[in-house]
Amino acid sequence: MKQYIEQNRQRFLDELFSILRIPSVSAQAEHRPDMYACAERLCTLLLEAGADKAGIWETDGNPVVFGEKIIDPKARTVLVYGHYDVQPAEPLEKWRTEPFEPVLGPDPATGEEAVWGRGANDDKGQLFMHIKAFEYMLGKSLLRHNVKFIFEGEEEIGSPSLPAWIKKHKKMLAADICLVSDTTMISEKVPSINCGMRGLSYLEVKVTGPNKDLHSGHYGGAVANPIQVLCEMISSLIDSDGRVTVPGFYDKVVELSRSERKMLARAPFDLKEYKDFLGIREVRGEKGYTTGERTGIRPCLDVCGIWGGYTGEGAKTVLPSEAHAKISMRLVPNQRSAEISELFAKHFKAIAPRCVKVEVTPCEGGDGFLIPVSSSAYKAASRAISEVYGIEPVPSRGGGSIAVLAEVQKILGMDPLLMGFGLERDTIHSPNESYLLRQLFGGMESIALFYSYWEPTAL
Amino acid sequence: MKQYIEQNRQRFLDELFSILRIPSVSAQAEHRPDMYACAERLCTLLLEAGADKAGIWETDGNPVVFGEKIIDPKARTVLVYGHYDVQPAEPLEKWRTEPFEPVLGPDPATGEEAVWGRGANDDKGQLFMHIKAFEYMLGKSLLRHNVKFIFEGEEEIGSPSLPAWIKKHKKMLAADICLVSDTTMISEKVPSINCGMRGLSYLEVKVTGPNKDLHSGHYGGAVANPIQVLCEMISSLIDSDGRVTVPGFYDKVVELSRSERKMLARAPFDLKEYKDFLGIREVRGEKGYTTGERTGIRPCLDVCGIWGGYTGEGAKTVLPSEAHAKISMRLVPNQRSAEISELFAKHFKAIAPRCVKVEVTPCEGGDGFLIPVSSSAYKAASRAISEVYGIEPVPSRGGGSIAVLAEVQKILGMDPLLMGFGLERDTIHSPNESYLLRQLFGGMESIALFYSYWEPTAL
Repeated sequence: MKQYIEQNRQRFLDELFSILRIPSVSAQAEHRPDMYACAERLCTLLLEAGADKAGIWETDGNPVVFGEKIIDPKARTVLVYGHYDVQPAEPLEKWRTEPFEPVLGPDPATGEEAVWGRGANDDKGQLFMHIKAFEYMLGKSLLRHNVKFIFEGEEEIGSPSLPAWIKKHKKMLAADICLVSDTTMISEKVPSINCGMRGLSYLEVKVTGPNKDLHSGHYGGAVANPIQVLCEMISSLIDSDGRVTVPGFYDKVVELSRSERKMLARAPFDLKEYKDFLGIREVRGEKGYTTGERTGIRPCLDVCGIWGGYTGEGAKTVLPSEAHAKISMRLVPNQRSAEISELFAKHFKAIAPRCVKVEVTPCEGGDGFLIPVSSSAYKAASRAISEVYGIEPVPSRGGGSIAVLAEVQKILGMDPLLMGFGLERDTIHSPNESYLLRQLFGGMESIALFYSYWEPTAL
Repeated sequence: MKQYIEQNRQRFLDELFSILRIPSVSAQAEHRPDMYACAERLCTLLLEAGADKAGIWETDGNPVVFGEKIIDPKARTVLVYGHYDVQPAEPLEKWRTEPFEPVLGPDPATGEEAVWGRGANDDKGQLFMHIKAFEYMLGKSLLRHNVKFIFEGEEEIGSPSLPAWIKKHKKMLAADICLVSDTTMISEKVPSINCGMRGLSYLEVKVTGPNKDLHSGHYGGAVANPIQVLCEMISSLIDSDGRVTVPGFYDKVVELSRSERKMLARAPFDLKEYKDFLGIREVRGEKGYTTGERTGIRPCLDVCGIWGGYTGEGAKTVLPSEAHAKISMRLVPNQRSAEISELFAKHFKAIAPRCVKVEVTPCEGGDGFLIPVSSSAYKAASRAISEVYGIEPVPSRGGGSIAVLAEVQKILGMDPLLMGFGLERDTIHSPNESYLLRQLFGGMESIALFYSYWEPTAL
């Protein structure tokens, strides 16, 4: 496929840029029309690549794009999953380029060419690889599998509408494997295939003290300050061993055996490199686990946002009425998102002192999952990546969450296969998201080879 | 003066509204031209009221308005201090009327008429009483004192430029007393004269974790989250007895004797009414002190603002790079603001864990002060207020800060006299600031009577 990429390089980039330009931010209601614009563009790209059909399907939320090519009803079917929604671009002032004006440019550190813009990797860049690998295989008459595409527009807000839609269209979506590129490789030098992802519980909390903002001179010292109470409550959520204090939080966590931990520890990891990349002097996390384990096999709790009182320029002396925070918990098998959200809400209310009122609103959630490394699809993917990267990929555990994949596994009864080509340097979800051309094109090649190496019928 | 107020009621309100309409927010740089507009309008009002001269004086920051009327060089001189800058109006969505479009309207709870708008009380409404009392006394040939006016434009940001300006103009400002209306009475039924105010240290802190925003799935649990670290640090600043934990914080606090505390306890206070007004179930503060003492004679620490991570709509999963807070400490005699700010900065840096970096920036400060209740001026003010309110005012300790008054006391060698007519219901610094007409006019009368009762020459 290398040659095909070289011949079509400019067209590929033009097509990718055309979807990156659409600000399809699912968390912000004002972008609702952009969701449709992006979905339509993807339909066009699928049809141009050779799909028999492709269309927009309404859900209770943002639309789903579904397209397919049936080569042989008896052959194996690959269901390609991706998402065309992106994270908000904020904080805008930290971007070096416009988030929705994609450009090609060198990495400031290495000089390597990359695509810069929101969604360059997550997940527009990665789902684009599938469209192009499909176009190549089909165009060269190499495709032996049936391929179905499902691109959703709500992954970044926890896919609230997709499970119901999938349940309704089980037959249409029937396939043998759910192929996904929405994850990262362990490092630039070490390709990997994710064989597990964390689940997620995301909640918003609000602490209310007095019924109005007060003059901090007239009331300070006598009336509980909701910001301070929120800080106390948040700081009590993790103990000195780095463990989450919500009662029952760890009850269902699957503890890995020593040999399982040993296998995962084979993934190369350089703590100094890691700290240098992040600009930190020390890592911090749950006692008794390595950095890799802390994100791979252990659950955690993070405050993703906090706000309250006066946050503008200068000094305003106020004892505010309210303080807010957004709290995410990453979950591992067999923690259930709904149950953990409930445990959290109950605990957070229980620890609130009487001088404040507390509200907890669940925002998003999804369960974690594991993928067997013994399947023929996993082996084909491993062989494909080995050939492109010259090194066998390591089975790894991703710390992130693709909420809906656990649902796919449950509803459609098929395992996901996570061929992700992102790198940590891509800083997805952050300003200056980018995707190396090397990975964009290497991913396409690997996906095309996967189709070649995976037998189109079960032996 | 009652009759004069009735005859000129509409003109008074028109004049007051003309200054309330100018958004002279000192904390926000964009309002710099409004500072000049407001200062000019005050000059005009002073000249129209009968001042010999009135002008705008440049400082290192916002301009000062100075005006005077010399009746008799041998007579006592009153220096009236006020400030024409106001607090930011944010959060705008909580205002029932436009903050800078003053209106007359009933109090929703009592039906009493009030002026609504930012600065209605603090301090445009209160300084306006002085211009009108002066106009009346002079116009009716009743004025026997020399009167000087100084209106500054930086009180709400801690008066950074005024002390230097005062030092330069000591002779011009020479007077026997500094008369100020910028405080509140204990309650609607109980007039009071402030005989002490708290000082202030105001600082901004920044906690930096990783050098960029991170995906909370990929890094959560392994890298310290600066919001959580900030929460831990803030919650450690106050112990379980409600005491500030900054080493040395209480070293210089003047502990009041039992009899002094008894005298202050005479001020009537209804805890149930207080809690109902604020909509809280419980008060909270330093162990061993009453609510009145906690704001009057004890120092405290408040978080006036906090922000970090994603604070927009929906669920963004991010482990942010930075978290920020604005922290104010109200100080009592003899705590020095500069020293406390330094102690705080040192402590805050000392308690930062190695996984983050911490910056502390002082924003604003001023010392607290005490005023003797035995002076002839205090007694004249007490008699004037007694006559208007039909009840003797209680000497009280205000919890707020007027940073510059301690400087005035030190530089010009004169005591402040705090005839404040605000009420807690006015919610200064908050949305829906207002000032009851009853207090606006009662204040004018009281000030006019003060001039009548204070002997124009020392006996």
